[in-house]
Parts: sequence; C-alpha cells; structure tokens
Amino acid sequence: METQSWEVLVHKKQLEAAAKIPIEWRLPEKLTKISEMSGINVLDVPRQSGILTPRQLEITEEWDATDLLRKMHCQELSAYEVTEAFCIRAAIVQQVTRCLTETFFERALQRAKDLDEILCKTGTLVGPLHGLPISFKDCFNIDGIPSTIGFTSFIKNGPLSSTSPAVRILLNLGAIPYVKTNVPQTMMAADSHNYIFGRTINPHRSNLTAGGSTGGEGALIAMRGSVLGVGTDIASSIRIPAVCNGIYSLRSSADRIPYGGQTSSVRGGLAGIKPCAGPMATSVRDLELFMKLVTNADPWQFDSSALFSPWRTVTPKSALRLGLILEDSHFPLHPPVLRTLTRATKTLEAAGNQIIPLHTLLMRNACTLAFRMFSMDPALTPFKHIAASGEPTIPALASTSLHHGYMPYGCAPLTLEGLYDLNEEPNHLKEEFRDRIMQAKVDAIIMPGYQGTAQPHDLSGFVPYTVLCNVMDYPSCIIPYGKANKSADEAFIRRVNYKPPYVADDIEGAPCCIQLVGRNMHDEELVKVAELVSETLML
Amino acid sequence: METQSWEVLVHKKQLEAAAKIPIEWRLPEKLTKISEMSGINVLDVPRQSGILTPRQLEITEEWDATDLLRKMHCQELSAYEVTEAFCIRAAIVQQVTRCLTETFFERALQRAKDLDEILCKTGTLVGPLHGLPISFKDCFNIDGIPSTIGFTSFIKNGPLSSTSPAVRILLNLGAIPYVKTNVPQTMMAADSHNYIFGRTINPHRSNLTAGGSTGGEGALIAMRGSVLGVGTDIASSIRIPAVCNGIYSLRSSADRIPYGGQTSSVRGGLAGIKPCAGPMATSVRDLELFMKLVTNADPWQFDSSALFSPWRTVTPKSALRLGLILEDSHFPLHPPVLRTLTRATKTLEAAGNQIIPLHTLLMRNACTLAFRMFSMDPALTPFKHIAASGEPTIPALASTSLHHGYMPYGCAPLTLEGLYDLNEEPNHLKEEFRDRIMQAKVDAIIMPGYQGTAQPHDLSGFVPYTVLCNVMDYPSCIIPYGKANKSADEAFIRRVNYKPPYVADDIEGAPCCIQLVGRNMHDEELVKVAELVSETLML
Repeated sequence: METQSWEVLVHKKQLEAAAKIPIEWRLPEKLTKISEMSGINVLDVPRQSGILTPRQLEITEEWDATDLLRKMHCQELSAYEVTEAFCIRAAIVQQVTRCLTETFFERALQRAKDLDEILCKTGTLVGPLHGLPISFKDCFNIDGIPSTIGFTSFIKNGPLSSTSPAVRILLNLGAIPYVKTNVPQTMMAADSHNYIFGRTINPHRSNLTAGGSTGGEGALIAMRGSVLGVGTDIASSIRIPAVCNGIYSLRSSADRIPYGGQTSSVRGGLAGIKPCAGPMATSVRDLELFMKLVTNADPWQFDSSALFSPWRTVTPKSALRLGLILEDSHFPLHPPVLRTLTRATKTLEAAGNQIIPLHTLLMRNACTLAFRMFSMDPALTPFKHIAASGEPTIPALASTSLHHGYMPYGCAPLTLEGLYDLNEEPNHLKEEFRDRIMQAKVDAIIMPGYQGTAQPHDLSGFVPYTVLCNVMDYPSCIIPYGKANKSADEAFIRRVNYKPPYVADDIEGAPCCIQLVGRNMHDEELVKVAELVSETLML
Repeated sequence: METQSWEVLVHKKQLEAAAKIPIEWRLPEKLTKISEMSGINVLDVPRQSGILTPRQLEITEEWDATDLLRKMHCQELSAYEVTEAFCIRAAIVQQVTRCLTETFFERALQRAKDLDEILCKTGTLVGPLHGLPISFKDCFNIDGIPSTIGFTSFIKNGPLSSTSPAVRILLNLGAIPYVKTNVPQTMMAADSHNYIFGRTINPHRSNLTAGGSTGGEGALIAMRGSVLGVGTDIASSIRIPAVCNGIYSLRSSADRIPYGGQTSSVRGGLAGIKPCAGPMATSVRDLELFMKLVTNADPWQFDSSALFSPWRTVTPKSALRLGLILEDSHFPLHPPVLRTLTRATKTLEAAGNQIIPLHTLLMRNACTLAFRMFSMDPALTPFKHIAASGEPTIPALASTSLHHGYMPYGCAPLTLEGLYDLNEEPNHLKEEFRDRIMQAKVDAIIMPGYQGTAQPHDLSGFVPYTVLCNVMDYPSCIIPYGKANKSADEAFIRRVNYKPPYVADDIEGAPCCIQLVGRNMHDEELVKVAELVSETLML
C-alpha cells in the first residue's frame, strides 16, 4: 500500500469539505479573506451576505432552543425550515471562522422532512427535541461521518460505523445533528487549531482565539449558526470557548451526561480527573433543558460510564448567598475581567443578594495538579497520533507545557508511585473546598472564568479558574456579561505580572463573562442560581 | 523511647479489652473454650448462659431494627433497655466468637440514657434511628476509640480524635455506637483473623471462617449481638461475612454511603475500583432503612467523596424477571450452593417470576483483574504496616495470593503503563455486562454469593461471585436461604475441581444464601427485588 503524505490527505479532505457547501451558500471571496492578525469582527457577515432570507435570519437570530421548539411543536415553524436556516447559517459561519469539521446538511434536511411528516401524520412528536438542529464537537461519533479530531493521521479512518451514546440519546429525543465542530490538535489546548481544518477564529475579533477545545462550537453558537451544541471538558474545554465567544455553557458534574463512545485523543485508563460532556447554548434555560432531558433519558442504558441521576426539581431561591473567589495572585485578573466581576457583584448585591468573599484557594495548585495528571501517560498517546502522520505540532501546545514560564513546575515523576500520590491530592483539595463551602453556607460561587478575555492566537496558556472545577468535580457555568472596553477598563489596571500579558488594544470588544460554580451533583441548584444571576445582570 | 515487642503490646491490649466486659456479663470458662477444629455451634450460648433476662432475650431475638425503632419511638421499649440488652449480648457473643475489637458499653449506655431523657422531656426524637444500637467494623473511626484494624503496629496510635462521616451521620440520626468488630490483618482476606484480637469463628460451626473482611459483624449479627452493623467492601467484604454467617447485607453503588475518614490498611490513590460502606442486618427492610436514611442525610456535607444521591421512591413489582448467572466453570459451585440456587429459582418460578439464564460472564477474569489492581501498590503498604511491628502475616493471606493454585495468573506489571491498561479493563467488562442486561431486560440477577458455604479457616481463597460487583460497581445483596445438608446436597455433587475442596462433613449445617445483583445506582430497585425474593423464599 502506498502511503500519501499528510499534506496530500489534508488537501483532499479540505476539497471534499468545501464541496459539501452548496454553491448558493458560498460567500464571495472578499468576505472570507479574514486576517488572523487584524481585529475584524465577523458577527454580522451572515446578515451582510444576503444569503439568508428575512425569515431565516429571524429563525436563527431571534430565539433560543426553548422558543424554537415551542414554535416547531405548535407547527408555527417546520423542522425543515428551521434546519435549513441553521444549515445555511452554519455554512456561512464556517467560511469566516473555520468552526466546522464535518457537515452533513442533506442528511439533516432529510431527517427534518421525516420529522415534519411524522408530526403531520400522527400529530405526535418524536420527542421533546423534535426538530431541533444540534451541533457536536468533532469527537462525538456519528454513524457514517468521520471523527478526525484534528489529527491528520486519523483521516485514513474514514467514516465511522458507530454513534456515541450522547448523540443516540439526542436523536431519540428528536434532535437533528447537522454539523460537527473544530478542535485543537490533541484537544488539549485553548486554540482550536489543527492541520486538517485550520484555525477557528473568534468572530468578535479575528486576532483572538475562539478558545478550546470546543472552540468550533464557541464560534458557531456566537454567530448563531447553532443554538445548542455539545462539547466536552476535562480541562475547561466547554467553558473556555464560552468565555472567549460570549455564550453560555455548563460543565456538569462528571458522568451525568454520557461521555462514552467518542473518538479520543488521549489514552484511556486515567482515573483521576473525569472528562464530561455538556451543553453550550445561548440561554441558561437551554442549558437546563439539555441537562434535564439527557439525565432523564437514563443514559446508563446506552453507556455504562454514565451515572443514573434523573434531574431533580428544585425551587429557585429569590435571593442568593454567593461566595466570591476573586483571584489567585499567581494569575492576576486582566482589567476587563476585574471590572466585570466588580460590576457583577455590585449589581447582584444591589438586587438583594449577598456576596461572601471566600479565602482564595490556590487555583494554581489545582491547575498544576491537573496538568501533571494529564501528562502522566508514559506513552504520550496524543503525540503518537501526531507523529503517526509526520505533521507538526500546533504552536498553541507550547503555552500549556508545564515547563512554560507561567508554570515552571515540571511534570510529576512518570511512575506508578507518582500516580498514586497524584491521585490522592485532589481528595485533599476537595475536602478543603467542601469545608469552606459548608462553613460559608453559600448557594454557589461567583468567580472569573479565566484571567483574561479571549487572547491573541496561541497565547492563552493555563486556565486555572476553570480547571479548578475539573479537579473538584463541581458543576460550573459561564454567563456572558459585557465586553472589554479600554476606557472603562483603565481604572482596573494594576502593576502586576499578567499571564498572558494584557494589551488593551488587542482585545477591545472581546466578550466578558462570569463563572458560577456549584456543589458536586447540585447541577440542578446551580442552573437555578445561574438563571437568577443571568436575569439580574441583564436588567 | 523504649519500644516494646508486639507481643507485649498485644498482651496489654487484650487484658484491657477483657477488663472492659463487666464481671456479671462474663461466661464460665466451659462455654468459652471453643475448638477451632471441631464443628461446635455456639448460636444458643446467649440463651444457655443465663445472663440475659427473658425480656433481654426477647429484645435481642424477636425484632429487627425497624421493629425495635417502632417500639422505642412509642416508648414501649426504652433506648436504655435496648442498648443494655445488646451490650450484654454482644459481650457474650464476643466471648465465644471473638467478633469484637473495641467495646464502649458505658458510653453507649450513657447516650441511651440521654436519648431517653430527651424523648421523655421534649416528646421528640433526635432522629429516625433514635435509640438504636449500631455496630461498626473496626476501620470506622470514633472519637476517643482506637482503630487498630488488626495491625499490631497500630496499637501505639491509641484512641483517635476523629469520627468517620458515616458514624457522624448515624449519630445525628440518633443511633448508639457500642462496639467495633473484628477484621483480618490487612483487611484483604476472607478470615477475620489478626494478632491483636485473634480469629473470629463462625457461630454456626467453630471450624469455619466467619468470613471477611467484615467478619466480626457477620458473627455478631448472626448471634443477634447486633441487628444493624456497618461494614466496608472493596472486594466482597460486606457480602462474604453475610454468606458465611447467614445474614443480610448490601454492597450499594459506590459513593452513596460515605466511605471517607476511616483508618485504612491500604494506600490511597488507587482510583480503579472504589470501596464502599454498607449495611449488614437481619432483614431486607433494615438494609433499605439504612440506605434511605443515610443517602437522604446529604452525606456530601460530611465527606466530599460521597455522592449526593437521595433515595428514590420506587414502586415494587409484583412479579420479577430475574437473570440467572449460575457458574463460572473455573470456580464450580459446591453442592449445597448449587442445590440452594436450584431450589431458589424453582420456588421463584413457581411463584410467578421469570428466570432468564444469562450467558456466563467470566467471573474469573473480573476476579483476576480486581486482585491485580489491589496488588498494584509498589510500596506494598499493608505489608509495611505488618513489618512495622515484626508480627507474622496471617495464614489466610496465602489463599488470595495471585500465585495461588486457584489463580495461577500472577500480578500485573507494577508500572504506570500497567495501571493505565488495568484501569481500562473494567470499562470493557462494564459495557459487556450492560449490554447483556439491557438485552435480557431483567429486573435483577440472581446468582451465587460464593462458590461454597463458609469454609474451614484459611481456605476461602478467591471470591469471584461477589468481587464481580466491585469491578462492575453494581449493588448486590445477600439473602440467607437454608443450610448445607449432606444428604440433600449429595445429588448435586459433580466430578469437577472444587476450589476450595468440598468436604461435606466439614460444612454440615453451614448457612446457604443467594446473591441478588442490580444495576449501578438502582439500589432502590434492587432492595425492592430483594424484599419480594426474600418473602417468596421464606414462604
């Protein structure tokens, strides 16, 4: 068998991918030539393009999943027209951000037609998600579609013959998969960049990362090429793209959403920190909708690694007691983040909620621990997958090396003894955190999602404020809130060692956010807190 | 500091322990001289001793925890008289079986007095377990009491200053701890034998093991020196003592009952197979009572390793579909076990339940995997604790060595690579088992608890039929059912290689049982199945 160079395989794959976008959905070249160095905002391209009809613009821009479902279920909208609108919009977003990996528009439209027919003929819905287009991170397997997850060595695997349990459940509920979304090579970086599908850019500013590893979803949802996407998160990967792109996302307690049956970049058998699957959306209530429907679908029936834990009905509180974790001094908050948190806590207090400062936990320690664990595999599996094709590594990987200047701590010894010791460490952190929360009697914690906003490409580095929840296994939710604004942020500049550096002009207009963190297995309570906080901040 | 030999420390400790039994509760020497070689049955000694009053005999023999609580809560019985009766009876049982480690009768009686006073004065109960004496495996820490867990090197630790979360929760619910119970040295054997407290004997036949590692509880509850005990189980340790002593026990899904804050024999940081804490009792409904109250007490508040998973109310079915796993041919069922399962399934079928034979899963593989994992610690921590005092190892440890004739497989390579690989194996077994259960659509599985009945001391060896549920993380329940009976069992003798050997005369009269196994996190459903099965078999 003759083997082709990775460049040849990639070129072929890219041509195939481009050909799957119908000619009438293609943008003129002037709209697709986006410099990764300039701070171009492409959010308005779908509108400017003239490709979408006014009704398609309305469908994709006006409503969240909950609203769309309501309109489809009372037959005010058909599954077909909704799916078509999102297929076109996703195709447009792809051309300006490179957020997609696989597209299967025809298949999606056929399913939409079938669902419309069923509803029309029988008067009943296939399920509560009947007709809703849902996007998936590339690692989710779908029968007949490839999962290359950014490794050129995986191109040869071709279309797969299995479907991940999470996808199967969403299909059973009536959803319509239509695209898969871009990831970083190795899926262990905050830049969704690889040599098959290129680099996903941030639609708010083209010089910034869309985050990772679920960065494709982040950009797609920010531009409303999807209203509900499914990501995964072992080290912030559902939340960093939400931070970067100004959308909502939830990393739920481990095992509640089935994670099994995906294409993986890493070696199995690391039992210390569990990866999660979870929703990315345009509203808190859509996060809840996803959680409720999937947990209530008894996911264990499809995936033995999923926990049977039906969604509990909880009564929302009208006033909250929120713990505040402001900062680990090793990773100082950039001015827009500090301003956003200050403003958010003031607004929440003014609305009658209590803010209880919590003694800063060492986020850095949790972060070092996590990245040490992630690099314990003596076989260096992700790098084997890179080496298999001869492709280079992406530049972003340098920014999360433990020998990096931000984290000059080195790896744990790659020994069995070392792993036993590492596995014990989270238990101590968990007990300390539990104790703190119990004493402070807080409903949730408000904290930054990241030390900065989205960063220029390849500079993001470590993500201590989100990876904390991976180490703790706490549910955590990103709520978008405002934008970086040089003149407003100026007052929050301090003489500290920002990591990465703070350069106001680079990030002007980048989305800001807050992170809300709840108790393990109290996802239900956290979502209610997030709903109240979100409403209060949007007033 | 002068160090004393372990023999001297043990002698001192034994004198102290003996002195804690009030003179009026001591048995005459003729009753306490029990040969470990003869098959003496000591179940009737509490009655013969004349120490217990008729009312005390009634209290300890007639009711389970549910009944006792009802009687105490309507003040038909006082907490004091119930506690006193169980203290005396436990002291008697100790003298014939060596089932106890620590006793704290005075403290228990004082607490009973206090609880009676509270109820009398306020008319309200401290909690739903108000007044119930509960026994604990020695590894549970109780403030002011030692936890030596059978290591003579731990004697020097003296009384501890912490209380395990499970104990704290039961105290909050109103329970009265009064004794701790015996375990094997290392807690990784099926013989509860160590050089501090000696060997616990099986009250049904003194030549047989009481099982392990919660063997002390097994003997104590079988002789009704307790009606509710708390054990732990990483490799069958809650269930093997129930198998051996003819009592009820439940190994629940991992993390539902808090396991934290115990004295451990092994090294922390093994993440592959999780240990559990769970109830041992005289009725199925008491197992449910324990599970319901502890899971509903929000154990995470006390122990961050506990899962928030309140007890669900499920409607019992009136007819069951039970999968049957009969045997792994590598570990043939001894005649009384085969007869018991045959009889049980016939009785259940006759009562209108369906029995669905399931293709035999390789119990041996799951067992090898489990014991490989348990022996991965390169520091050999339990053996360090033995070596620390110079005491010898107990003979029983030889019977669960992976180089044993029954399991000639050797250990996994003690490398990081080896652990990654081992950690992946249970995932495959779990998927296979899930698939099988889903296809067979069974409510639960009925299977043997062990290949034989209780075995002569130090011969038990591997426990493939129970350790399967540790590997799978399935809840599993032991239901006592009948006795070994040489003449009835004869028809079930086969020309197979029994491991350990089957010697009918050695085990005549030993308890028999069945094991019921449910889906992970379906402890609620399993308990309802167990209730119906138990009722049907007792008809």
